Amino acid sequence: MTGQFSPAFREELAALMRWRRDVRRFRTDPVPEDLLARCLQAFTLAPSVGLSEPWRILRLDSPRLRAHCHENFRAANARALTGQDGERAAIYSRLKLSGMAEAPIHLAVFCDDATAKGGGLGAATMPETRAYSVVGAITLFWLTLRAAGLGLGWVSILDPDRLRLDLDVPEDWRFIGYLCIGWPEKEDTVPELERVGWETRAPALHLETR
Amino acid sequence: MTGQFSPAFREELAALMRWRRDVRRFRTDPVPEDLLARCLQAFTLAPSVGLSEPWRILRLDSPRLRAHCHENFRAANARALTGQDGERAAIYSRLKLSGMAEAPIHLAVFCDDATAKGGGLGAATMPETRAYSVVGAITLFWLTLRAAGLGLGWVSILDPDRLRLDLDVPEDWRFIGYLCIGWPEKEDTVPELERVGWETRAPALHLETR
Repeated sequence: MTGQFSPAFREELAALMRWRRDVRRFRTDPVPEDLLARCLQAFTLAPSVGLSEPWRILRLDSPRLRAHCHENFRAANARALTGQDGERAAIYSRLKLSGMAEAPIHLAVFCDDATAKGGGLGAATMPETRAYSVVGAITLFWLTLRAAGLGLGWVSILDPDRLRLDLDVPEDWRFIGYLCIGWPEKEDTVPELERVGWETRAPALHLETR
Repeated sequence: MTGQFSPAFREELAALMRWRRDVRRFRTDPVPEDLLARCLQAFTLAPSVGLSEPWRILRLDSPRLRAHCHENFRAANARALTGQDGERAAIYSRLKLSGMAEAPIHLAVFCDDATAKGGGLGAATMPETRAYSVVGAITLFWLTLRAAGLGLGWVSILDPDRLRLDLDVPEDWRFIGYLCIGWPEKEDTVPELERVGWETRAPALHLETR
């Protein structure tokens, strides 16, 4: 295969990006292990600052550890609700913001801020680029999952310090995101937050030229 | 078009991810404006925490502003070289780490940490997820460019405070990355840092189950 891509492929790539959604409603039937493993290979194709590949991934199968994380989410979400006013609070309280109860696969993703890999190249003035590399890799994984019909929900309503303690990860691991993965209950090209009237997407990108 | 994707498309998507490279060597011929505009639409399809769409993009056409940023890179790169020892320093000094001199399109990308859009949803305990949303959007843009034959080089060897001052951006804009865009001189599936012996990619993803 060459590095040339057809107009038809490019159109389908845009469609994939439209269909990719943050999924919070999952069916509970299992994800085949070989399919998950193939999708995870997207991480090995991801860009990373200085070729540092700083992603560290824990797969959480233990009901006890999942329960800790779910309780962490519930507490953070309850606190977040108190920060919303009036009508917004009413909408917020009805939102389903995580699929942690149903998703068959749970991954906690971290960035190893102290990795020696890459020799620090590119990260001297902006060490946060290591975390950005992990986010880029998750994005490729997300698209790969969606192309296979799977959904991913990125949970960020969590206390990261408590999560790191509960999962007993090394000191230098920064928590990036908690990923719920499974078969979506339904598919949509409109984000759930737009469907329920929380927020609308900008129709076009504003770009300022200087 | 439906949300179903064929095995052939999924294979081509993986190929796109293999061909996507951090490009530092550009031809100087221009990028058609309509092609760039189409690729930029990828931002409008990107996920963002709470639907906050916090990306802010400056296109730098001004030779004076480009020169400020290029000088910023040269200074940061010279400092980074002094942090490398012996043989690594020798390799580092030979690396070409930015295409700022040749790339026809320069974008400085920021995150508006103070945006009211999204009502703070999902970002209370982890405000850095706004920056992560910008990184995810850049990743979709990167793939879209590459599918059109264009290359992107993400420059992070910069002093972000100096860059924000030079470009006179609002107080709450966090600098995410400086993107050089153009037609690559050549294409490769192997990262340049691997070709020159700086670092190697892990052949497989290590995932720990708990």
